[in-house]
Amino acid sequence: MARIQWVGFDGDDTLWRSQEFYDRAQDDFEAIIGRYVDLAAVGLRAKLLATERANLALFGYGVKGMVLSMVEAAIDLTEGRIEARDIQTVVDMGKDLLAHPVELLPGIAEAVDQVAAEHHVVLITKGDLFHQERKVAQCGLTAFKRIEIVSEKDASTYRRLLQEFQVSADRFAMVGNSLKSDIAPVVELGGWGVYMPYHATWEHEVLKGFDGAGRVVEVEGAHGIVGAIERMAAMAAATG
Amino acid sequence: MARIQWVGFDGDDTLWRSQEFYDRAQDDFEAIIGRYVDLAAVGLRAKLLATERANLALFGYGVKGMVLSMVEAAIDLTEGRIEARDIQTVVDMGKDLLAHPVELLPGIAEAVDQVAAEHHVVLITKGDLFHQERKVAQCGLTAFKRIEIVSEKDASTYRRLLQEFQVSADRFAMVGNSLKSDIAPVVELGGWGVYMPYHATWEHEVLKGFDGAGRVVEVEGAHGIVGAIERMAAMAAATG
Repeated sequence: MARIQWVGFDGDDTLWRSQEFYDRAQDDFEAIIGRYVDLAAVGLRAKLLATERANLALFGYGVKGMVLSMVEAAIDLTEGRIEARDIQTVVDMGKDLLAHPVELLPGIAEAVDQVAAEHHVVLITKGDLFHQERKVAQCGLTAFKRIEIVSEKDASTYRRLLQEFQVSADRFAMVGNSLKSDIAPVVELGGWGVYMPYHATWEHEVLKGFDGAGRVVEVEGAHGIVGAIERMAAMAAATG
Repeated sequence: MARIQWVGFDGDDTLWRSQEFYDRAQDDFEAIIGRYVDLAAVGLRAKLLATERANLALFGYGVKGMVLSMVEAAIDLTEGRIEARDIQTVVDMGKDLLAHPVELLPGIAEAVDQVAAEHHVVLITKGDLFHQERKVAQCGLTAFKRIEIVSEKDASTYRRLLQEFQVSADRFAMVGNSLKSDIAPVVELGGWGVYMPYHATWEHEVLKGFDGAGRVVEVEGAHGIVGAIERMAAMAAATG
């Protein structure tokens, strides 16, 4: 019977609050652009998402790339009419986001410690190296055996990490709020997922039509994580 | 007698050209700002460097942070008079830098292969995770046992990496163009340095008054690297 040995935790919106700060920055961005144009008429949200997606291959994930995409979208949407002072406000929003103190989610510190008592725990987070390191340093969680900051969370990234950890996929479970980045690629490799949805999800992270192949447990919050991992041994016996 | 077992290579301006592209971007930036203000009177270079340094603790190294600092300095220097279209040009300069094809330095591919025939070679590069990964993927060098992209190259970073490699500092040599980031922190730990100066150095990387404590060999180009590493065993015997 399989037993989970290694447990990975996602960072943003799993250990600490993140997306809501981006959403607030987006609201502030709308308020600025709304002084120049009719927001509904120009389709601001769709335009910003399209700009971010087009720039993702050059910028990667993170605040700095988002701010650069916002500056670009702002100039485009206002047809160059936006004033420099307002662009500085957009840059300052980014600096505020980067400087924002880390706020752990309820119960997660206890959950990480409980899981760490029985398993190797690792932090696997995607995004800007410098910003993520800053959050890791500030978060106060010390149980992680390794900290992995990666540029993309796909099956090939997880395959490389599992090789480095020297663990087979069926002994590995990933805890996270994104089906696309945290759960589906791990299940694809034969691993396990603890899916802990967050109230806010970046549209780019939405994954439709995924079924967990009997290898995913959904939990409502951090208090459910330990029990979910315990259930996985029984699930392995049932499916396998 | 000590023998070097592991050799680290820096990326930017050691394996591939980098600083000259930043310098060109800075020239383009000056040309833009020069249409608004008297460059000498406002002290553009000093102002931009000061803005970059002030933002380093939030942005870290890399193109995206440089562009954000340029946008900020441009707005400040022109007292908000810069037009949005010119800010877009600055953002586009950053996108061009990120998309720029990798250009290996003369002889470096051969030098890496020759060193790899006798040693474990690793790439240790500082900067933006996404951009550095892109350059590593494009550079075509495949001998590296590990690729380490770090946010800062100081003694504590090298100490952590040497522990992960399970090698003592006196068996490790670092090849790079920056005394501050590649050579001095490794020598501080008891390691060795192959210093290969580049014709352009970012002012932030300049280190004054460093003597190599008999553990640094300066080479004029990649063709000198193999010989420099061979000399280190003799140097170790001489210094005791």
